[in-house]
Amino acid sequence: MTDAAPGKVYLVGSGPGDPDLLTVKAKRLLEEADVVLHDKLPGPEIIGMIPEEKREDVGKRAGGEWTPQEYTNARLVELAEEGNTVVRLKGGDPTVFGRGGEELAHLAENGIPVEIVPGITSAIAGPEAAGIPVTHRDYTSSVSFVTGHEDPTKDESAVDWDALAATGGTLVVLMGVGKLPQYTEALREAGMDPDTPVALVERATWPDQQVATGTLDTIVSVRDEAGIEPPAITVIGEVAGERERVVEFLEGY
Amino acid sequence: MTDAAPGKVYLVGSGPGDPDLLTVKAKRLLEEADVVLHDKLPGPEIIGMIPEEKREDVGKRAGGEWTPQEYTNARLVELAEEGNTVVRLKGGDPTVFGRGGEELAHLAENGIPVEIVPGITSAIAGPEAAGIPVTHRDYTSSVSFVTGHEDPTKDESAVDWDALAATGGTLVVLMGVGKLPQYTEALREAGMDPDTPVALVERATWPDQQVATGTLDTIVSVRDEAGIEPPAITVIGEVAGERERVVEFLEGY
Repeated sequence: MTDAAPGKVYLVGSGPGDPDLLTVKAKRLLEEADVVLHDKLPGPEIIGMIPEEKREDVGKRAGGEWTPQEYTNARLVELAEEGNTVVRLKGGDPTVFGRGGEELAHLAENGIPVEIVPGITSAIAGPEAAGIPVTHRDYTSSVSFVTGHEDPTKDESAVDWDALAATGGTLVVLMGVGKLPQYTEALREAGMDPDTPVALVERATWPDQQVATGTLDTIVSVRDEAGIEPPAITVIGEVAGERERVVEFLEGY
Repeated sequence: MTDAAPGKVYLVGSGPGDPDLLTVKAKRLLEEADVVLHDKLPGPEIIGMIPEEKREDVGKRAGGEWTPQEYTNARLVELAEEGNTVVRLKGGDPTVFGRGGEELAHLAENGIPVEIVPGITSAIAGPEAAGIPVTHRDYTSSVSFVTGHEDPTKDESAVDWDALAATGGTLVVLMGVGKLPQYTEALREAGMDPDTPVALVERATWPDQQVATGTLDTIVSVRDEAGIEPPAITVIGEVAGERERVVEFLEGY
């Protein structure tokens, strides 16, 4: 701690990976910040835009361990108290399963001025990069984002797959490649049509983006054949079938 | 129709309103496009950035009528067939209740190359501008976006408020100021705690942004007292209570 006036922390979303999908504000803040704390999700192209001397990596460390959240929280406060303008750069959007809410609360509790700069979430850009609109007048009046990081077979799972199936809306699962067999099973058991279209989008908007499509019944085999790996999103719902209608003329990724 | 090679249509999201929340790509495309078809939602600041001679307004017309979707669809095809690079600029994200999916399908059916450029949706940026993270480890494993444009008292409503309440996740209602009494009632009847925090964010990220907070029980009176009007989003869930914890140190909007 010092007696200097505190700096400020910007909780910034980097978008799904393509540097062109940074917001104008995020790009400017990366140039102007004194320090940028980032993990791996923004991707090498975006991290490469940040001058090396102001980068701090709070992502995976040697040995495969993750930096504890407590370290990141404390470091943000420390840097701001030294008077720095700090960017905390997160993949996608900072409050969509990004623990941005926890960092926000911690900073406010410590009296640090803080601002959230939204980013494009892969939960929306992923489907779009594959030619899939997340909502559609003909099919759905809602879209739900859910984390697949949980084990849906656990009794204490916080994710209610029955209720999500019952919404009748599009479901987008983030971080859901590994648990795909469990939650597709849970959704079938909840009464969702096994022929419901499903798409997997790996590394959406990255140069090596990969898309694979199937149904609630077939998508696990499709995943295995296509070799889809994290980071990827899963889109479940009639909208996923739209890809077929448009893919021939779809450009971009 | 002409014999020229077809141009291309970009379905572009403008973000919630602050020009700084345009993506780098959207900003560049607005400069490079031959024609920009827009409605009112991107807001005057962003529309003002587009040279007047390349703007076409397909939003509200004199007399309060909206341009029919069929006109917009046909105009996009026509302009592309003349060889133009066309930007179809939409508020927020083009496929989050923006009818982007319909335009995408129409363009592909007519053989027009098309690309989707995601935008920051007010469904995420709106809560964030008010200091509310849409997901939070302590409270929720999902977030659902739903349109409030529907009448939830209608039998044929496509929105299943019971199922949405049962997800236990954050609910964000877009275009939901007018029907607020109906769906807050529907959610209480579905068993949602009447003390659940609710926030309304009007014109998120615009210079005249307004935020009002209450509970599922009180929010209708809060809306009336604060004079909240469209366009606004409604955030329902424990996360909405986070605003109180952080608002003193929240900067930005």
